[in-house]
Amino acid sequence: MKRSELEAQIRAKKSVLCVGLDTDPQQLPPHLHSDPEAIFNFNRAIIEATAPFAVAYKPNTAFYEAEGLAGWEALAKTAAFLKSEYPEHLLIADAKRGDIGNTARRYAQAFLEKMPCDAITVAPYMGEDSVSPFLEWEGKWAIVLALTSNAGAEDFQLQALEAGAEGHSEALFERVLRRAQSWSGAERLMFVVGATRPQFLQRVRAIAPEHFLLIPGVGAQGGSVAEVMQYACAKSGPALLINSSRGIIYRSSGRDFAQAAAAEAEALQKQMAPFIA
Amino acid sequence: MKRSELEAQIRAKKSVLCVGLDTDPQQLPPHLHSDPEAIFNFNRAIIEATAPFAVAYKPNTAFYEAEGLAGWEALAKTAAFLKSEYPEHLLIADAKRGDIGNTARRYAQAFLEKMPCDAITVAPYMGEDSVSPFLEWEGKWAIVLALTSNAGAEDFQLQALEAGAEGHSEALFERVLRRAQSWSGAERLMFVVGATRPQFLQRVRAIAPEHFLLIPGVGAQGGSVAEVMQYACAKSGPALLINSSRGIIYRSSGRDFAQAAAAEAEALQKQMAPFIA
Repeated sequence: MKRSELEAQIRAKKSVLCVGLDTDPQQLPPHLHSDPEAIFNFNRAIIEATAPFAVAYKPNTAFYEAEGLAGWEALAKTAAFLKSEYPEHLLIADAKRGDIGNTARRYAQAFLEKMPCDAITVAPYMGEDSVSPFLEWEGKWAIVLALTSNAGAEDFQLQALEAGAEGHSEALFERVLRRAQSWSGAERLMFVVGATRPQFLQRVRAIAPEHFLLIPGVGAQGGSVAEVMQYACAKSGPALLINSSRGIIYRSSGRDFAQAAAAEAEALQKQMAPFIA
Repeated sequence: MKRSELEAQIRAKKSVLCVGLDTDPQQLPPHLHSDPEAIFNFNRAIIEATAPFAVAYKPNTAFYEAEGLAGWEALAKTAAFLKSEYPEHLLIADAKRGDIGNTARRYAQAFLEKMPCDAITVAPYMGEDSVSPFLEWEGKWAIVLALTSNAGAEDFQLQALEAGAEGHSEALFERVLRRAQSWSGAERLMFVVGATRPQFLQRVRAIAPEHFLLIPGVGAQGGSVAEVMQYACAKSGPALLINSSRGIIYRSSGRDFAQAAAAEAEALQKQMAPFIA
């Protein structure tokens, strides 16, 4: 999906909502427990109910891999369903992969070719040749982890690096933002930035003023939509995606789970709309 | 697998060889191309032929994921075969996973419970709570990326951090080695250290004198076994695993591929033996 298509969808829906499909069989509504295709059927119902209010979906691969072969099958089936029924929604494989070049290319093939995902999250620790294979597909995106929303972000991402050629010290996540921009332009590269640290959104925008940001941590993880919209928009417009997972998909554990998810997605969309021209 | 069991196997075989099962259907011997279970059958033949010379096997998940559902099935079948027929060999899922705590636990379940792997490689960028869930299993190992063998290691791993509480500056990979040791002892935690940088092995051992090291980059990536054995052993003994993937499994593209792999594995074992008391 091209950037212009994603931007058009954001303006049309007045939404930057990404729904996180962190689908855990143990947390599904009880009436689905006996369904052999519970994961896929749950995802389908969530997608159908929330599609008018969302512009992206983001299954986290960990939840599917934990179910073994049946989980991988449910992930593939969800991806195929989404891109055939809702091709205008961005499909992000939240896989956080990263490996040396030839191997990274296999991960890219797994998610961008074998599955019809539009984007994949990528870990930056191994540097350029671990990320660049994900940037070779026209109309596909690599979303590089910059600053994450967990406590462990302090361990390395927020550590200060010695001053380099730029002449001033900066945190590791800032170096990641700076270096990654030399690998690709803002058409195929996004960054993950944790919303529970709104004061850092300004530091991110100082380095990456126009890149799309994928912002998790709204909802169950505690960030505020209005605060994020205020600080994370690019000058040219709302170049961001705000993700909510558990706050939407587990809103109700009853037979009304999909309607409850839609209501929550709509509530989030309404908080976003005033910031989208 | 306990550390004492792994050490006993290393002494018994006079080998620290890990065989990398980076099994790529396009590189398999032509006579296997029509086999619907080519990936598993290739792996089984490689394992049976090389088992006397190796102490560990390391499938890289990227190669399996690139084949979709059939690839994931071949990976699961390979893991089950190895741990039922060769339980004394350490099985490492080279998955380089990393995510926030609750999600990381799902990855741990996928590889340490659902599959019978003994260990999984883990990316450190997201910090302690992204790694610690992999350290909760008795007798299972997390192998944290410290210094990798690719060119991109320069981008972040080798960047100098400002002096911290320790009072002197150090590279990011050294900070990772130091911090990670506060998360677990040397019974469940190993580090990945690239063999193409032997001069760094001494810096690694200065910080992590007794941890097991997983050292890729020997063979196709160019490192020397003797040099690695000389610099990477711990004071207490050969606490390391040297991985070779393509150099072993693709030694021959004929019907003799398994014998050729065994010959290469034995040749590497003979280079290791003089350094193992």
